[in-house]
Amino acid sequence: MKALIYHSANQKSWEEVAKPVIKEATDAILRISKTTICGTDLHIMKGDVATVTDGRILGHEGVGIIEEIGNAVSNFKKGDHVIISCITSCGKCANCKKGMYSHCDNGGWILGNTIDGTQAEYVRIPYADNSVYPIPAGSDEEALVMLSDILPTGFECGVLNGQVKPGDDVAIVGAGPVGLAALLTAQFYTPATLIVVDTDANRLEVAKTFGATHVINSLEEDAVKKVFELTGQRGIDVAIEAVGIPATFDICASILAPGAHLANIGVHGKAVELHMEALWAQNITLTTRLVDTVTTPMLFKNVQSKKLNATKLITHHFKLNQILEAYEIFGNAAKEHALKVILEN
Amino acid sequence: MKALIYHSANQKSWEEVAKPVIKEATDAILRISKTTICGTDLHIMKGDVATVTDGRILGHEGVGIIEEIGNAVSNFKKGDHVIISCITSCGKCANCKKGMYSHCDNGGWILGNTIDGTQAEYVRIPYADNSVYPIPAGSDEEALVMLSDILPTGFECGVLNGQVKPGDDVAIVGAGPVGLAALLTAQFYTPATLIVVDTDANRLEVAKTFGATHVINSLEEDAVKKVFELTGQRGIDVAIEAVGIPATFDICASILAPGAHLANIGVHGKAVELHMEALWAQNITLTTRLVDTVTTPMLFKNVQSKKLNATKLITHHFKLNQILEAYEIFGNAAKEHALKVILEN
Amino acid sequence: MKALIYHSANQKSWEEVAKPVIKEATDAILRISKTTICGTDLHIMKGDVATVTDGRILGHEGVGIIEEIGNAVSNFKKGDHVIISCITSCGKCANCKKGMYSHCDNGGWILGNTIDGTQAEYVRIPYADNSVYPIPAGSDEEALVMLSDILPTGFECGVLNGQVKPGDDVAIVGAGPVGLAALLTAQFYTPATLIVVDTDANRLEVAKTFGATHVINSLEEDAVKKVFELTGQRGIDVAIEAVGIPATFDICASILAPGAHLANIGVHGKAVELHMEALWAQNITLTTRLVDTVTTPMLFKNVQSKKLNATKLITHHFKLNQILEAYEIFGNAAKEHALKVILEN
Amino acid sequence: MKALIYHSANQKSWEEVAKPVIKEATDAILRISKTTICGTDLHIMKGDVATVTDGRILGHEGVGIIEEIGNAVSNFKKGDHVIISCITSCGKCANCKKGMYSHCDNGGWILGNTIDGTQAEYVRIPYADNSVYPIPAGSDEEALVMLSDILPTGFECGVLNGQVKPGDDVAIVGAGPVGLAALLTAQFYTPATLIVVDTDANRLEVAKTFGATHVINSLEEDAVKKVFELTGQRGIDVAIEAVGIPATFDICASILAPGAHLANIGVHGKAVELHMEALWAQNITLTTRLVDTVTTPMLFKNVQSKKLNATKLITHHFKLNQILEAYEIFGNAAKEHALKVILEN
Repeated sequence: MKALIYHSANQKSWEEVAKPVIKEATDAILRISKTTICGTDLHIMKGDVATVTDGRILGHEGVGIIEEIGNAVSNFKKGDHVIISCITSCGKCANCKKGMYSHCDNGGWILGNTIDGTQAEYVRIPYADNSVYPIPAGSDEEALVMLSDILPTGFECGVLNGQVKPGDDVAIVGAGPVGLAALLTAQFYTPATLIVVDTDANRLEVAKTFGATHVINSLEEDAVKKVFELTGQRGIDVAIEAVGIPATFDICASILAPGAHLANIGVHGKAVELHMEALWAQNITLTTRLVDTVTTPMLFKNVQSKKLNATKLITHHFKLNQILEAYEIFGNAAKEHALKVILEN
Repeated sequence: MKALIYHSANQKSWEEVAKPVIKEATDAILRISKTTICGTDLHIMKGDVATVTDGRILGHEGVGIIEEIGNAVSNFKKGDHVIISCITSCGKCANCKKGMYSHCDNGGWILGNTIDGTQAEYVRIPYADNSVYPIPAGSDEEALVMLSDILPTGFECGVLNGQVKPGDDVAIVGAGPVGLAALLTAQFYTPATLIVVDTDANRLEVAKTFGATHVINSLEEDAVKKVFELTGQRGIDVAIEAVGIPATFDICASILAPGAHLANIGVHGKAVELHMEALWAQNITLTTRLVDTVTTPMLFKNVQSKKLNATKLITHHFKLNQILEAYEIFGNAAKEHALKVILEN
Repeated sequence: MKALIYHSANQKSWEEVAKPVIKEATDAILRISKTTICGTDLHIMKGDVATVTDGRILGHEGVGIIEEIGNAVSNFKKGDHVIISCITSCGKCANCKKGMYSHCDNGGWILGNTIDGTQAEYVRIPYADNSVYPIPAGSDEEALVMLSDILPTGFECGVLNGQVKPGDDVAIVGAGPVGLAALLTAQFYTPATLIVVDTDANRLEVAKTFGATHVINSLEEDAVKKVFELTGQRGIDVAIEAVGIPATFDICASILAPGAHLANIGVHGKAVELHMEALWAQNITLTTRLVDTVTTPMLFKNVQSKKLNATKLITHHFKLNQILEAYEIFGNAAKEHALKVILEN
Repeated sequence: MKALIYHSANQKSWEEVAKPVIKEATDAILRISKTTICGTDLHIMKGDVATVTDGRILGHEGVGIIEEIGNAVSNFKKGDHVIISCITSCGKCANCKKGMYSHCDNGGWILGNTIDGTQAEYVRIPYADNSVYPIPAGSDEEALVMLSDILPTGFECGVLNGQVKPGDDVAIVGAGPVGLAALLTAQFYTPATLIVVDTDANRLEVAKTFGATHVINSLEEDAVKKVFELTGQRGIDVAIEAVGIPATFDICASILAPGAHLANIGVHGKAVELHMEALWAQNITLTTRLVDTVTTPMLFKNVQSKKLNATKLITHHFKLNQILEAYEIFGNAAKEHALKVILEN
């Protein structure tokens, strides 16, 4: 089969490799129908993710069709259409039992990282009963690709951890795909205000069409000052960090009302300065989270009942064998006005 | 009357001043029965608290007897014995209605800060109905002085915010009075392990008698390494910071299991470095809080039912007019093996 | 002034009475701008509420203008426009401090019950700082009358107690004003399904325009069977009882999935049979609640930000002196297609 | 092998049957070390549990040694000592993922019910990775038999569902083994008062030694009246029903303070009358639950750390082949002063 192979920093290729086979009784082999590229894949391609080594098939998102199952798989059978979770869950370690699949002793984020991933014609999924979700006939499978990672990430790490409540004033710092996923799913809880902060004018325009009540271009105005203005100098109830650098983290930590939540989604590469001399008495809660994908069934239900329009996040379409071109476009997302791309097999 | 007056950094005196009078319909005037000195009072005496100005009577803890009430006070009458809360709550602003009395629009921590406090023969308490608590006849009033600040602080900021649960592994970094208050009240939730970290051998001995299952002298061994050893390399479920400096905050942030809580109690004077490059994926929750004293009635009930031995925190006794000597002892707490002092009027 | 006076079962009149005066430092006197009639007022008029005695002015809802305040009232001044809460809260008893204003030691539901109410030109409001809410200039005051009782009741007793979550299947049994208030506010949490059950075809049509995804006329079909059909035989996540009779309670208790919530809003006049032989192993949660009106500020915010269209609940308008006619119409709500009436002073 | 076989109401025998064998890749075969008898087994023997049919091996509790595993079992290996959970969990259905193992699509309470159980020399455990728990060498295995059912049942259905908090006033109605398990584990949360109600003087004496602060013999005094006396006429914060008949349920429903919780543990055989005409406005929460055994790891940890003395529940010892005699004793528990019996293989 064909697959996108990582070799080393900035070295990848679309090449012929062996088709995966069942290794454990709990495995399934899937034929990929549609997959996509994540910001994390770009990080990997810069050589920033040490666990990814030469020869690895990238990708941790997608929908597919069950081709073969191990003898302990009981939730699925050959021919079933399924959503692949970016997080593999064994369902039987202490962390899985707590719903913290991200820290599964036997899984977690392994696809396209420590085992071969989904940017390929076929993929092996360990612990398939717990790591893929059924798609009923007639569903919009393209939309469901957004459930592999981006929507649960925005929702769990940003909205759930931030404890967004009806009537809240919420700020999302970062209007990339994950920030926008948080923006879409924050609306499940009917906040009064949804302020989006970014430095890209196009993304802020997109944010408005996704439900932002206010947008702030932090290149053009002082974001902290503006948030206080918009909230009657009270500050925000929930700040969602969706970039992963000290500057955006600082904005989040500087706009909190007493009692507020700062929910971090961004993947950080270095330490931040946390102003405990100001925050110690502010009754704030700061959370971090690698997505657990425990909310995938709920998000699926809200996509099916039209409460969540996942398609909005998709801007570009390619054939799977055009994946190098797709990486090119996605790697220049701002310029290309790209959010998520769909790669069809 | 006599009172302890702050003049400027390192300048205080015990002097004659005017007795307080009712200013608002919601005020009460109390005769102080017993009061104490807080670590915060020492900070003030160093000149570190800018809101405290020349002429201020210090002190925000104590028990007293109602001497006079304004015409809107209905929960109390002349002669009632009461516990004074370190936090004044109006009961009618948005924050008070949420139970966040620490950020009361009309109160918060004002006693011995922006208004005159309790290290005096008499004190005026604003919003008395919401800011003092009744003491039934026959109670051990000395023990109840610990309910003004130290026990709710350790419990709310440390134990409640840390979400200590039965079976948890808990570490408390700092075995001063507030850390010990957290240690006593953490036992309300029956954690499996209660590790206390400090640099003072005597305080660690005290911690053992207060219920610590393990103690670590961080001058003598690597506290982070030791905590991982004690938890089978898993890390801690709840870390409680009870010092307020970067070094102790760092220990707390370095011993967290995935999914753990870091509850800050310490009063910080400068920023800390938060290693988001390590923590972003660890599903942790970090909280800060100025005590709200919402749990005072519950703590009172557990003192009365002998579930909480508040007396353990008291090491020294003085007459109120010996307060300068008491400051001397309390200011050398480590050398004097002092925890809390009682000053009797 | 003029007021609607209860004399005895079925005996009421619109008559001249003395204007109320300040009795306590915490009182306010309001000129009523707009008020309404509650289903509870109809119960009172049947003689079913023993605490209401001859001479009582009825009514516990409305908006008004502050005319005079006691000397301990600090949140408001003469001329302020305010929403009156149906629940009076002293803000200083143990239950108020827990946010359970409904069981305030000094208040609770007293307006138009044990003290004179709002169906009058003027009303005295005890504990005004905690029992009325400010209305900014330019607000739609008619819509805000719905915040006195009906919206917090539907939301707190039904939606909050039922713990409605995104993706849930929810059934509301009873499409009167309170059931419809639950229907509107349940949408704050984006459930997947909102089934409304009633026996009145018109009200079910109204429910559809208010956001019901399915309606069931329980006179025409077996409501329990139909709910199981609509949920793939799984049952409902949240059942909200908004009538108050055994038959509707039974429907709610019969449609619960394992782990479901049954949130009672209805005012019951007799015992129900609870089938514990079936329910003991079903992991269900049943709640009851007299509204606390703790969510009034949030509901107000969502009305102002257009997330909640309270006006939808209003079907009829009268002048306050037409109140006897308004009672006539509201007393025949089904026939008159009436939800809430507005009485303007 | 030998096993205790149910034939029909009141007909059971200790007889030779075939040793179980692995049927599914997720199965394990265990040699039973120690087992016990549950009140539910007595119900079965009365013919009250229709799902139990002729030829069934009874028993759903015990500790054992892994003899053989299916090829998908990875948490355990031959020779491991384990605690058997009374609830079988597949770990991969929607209910298991929510932690509601009691309603597992593929398991739940099946041992000694719809499949052969633990009152035998060997037992087959489906989904072994999720349904048994490891016992480290050197543990007190007898005490750990109490973790199969009785301790998680008392804790989850009674204490957790009742939301027992520090300082609460708690009443447990029923001092049989499950009520006593609730009594032991309620102390994890340090309530101020723990009142136990029963009709058996001996069990009330036992309750005192287990930590009851007050006991009430409801044959000798009016339990409802007495509870109100003990709580200053306020009523109870948490009532735990541990019998399963209308009379004891009624006591629980009659002693609730506003805002209280009624947590049902008892297995009910008929409907109860719920006085909604009184309770609708009392802000109460009533819960039911079949034990999920999600807290077994925590309870295990607290047994190991000596925070929970499970041995207290054990009153009698037998060899496994004396099981008919053990049933005799346990069937006359009141007369024999029996709580739990241990049957050793």
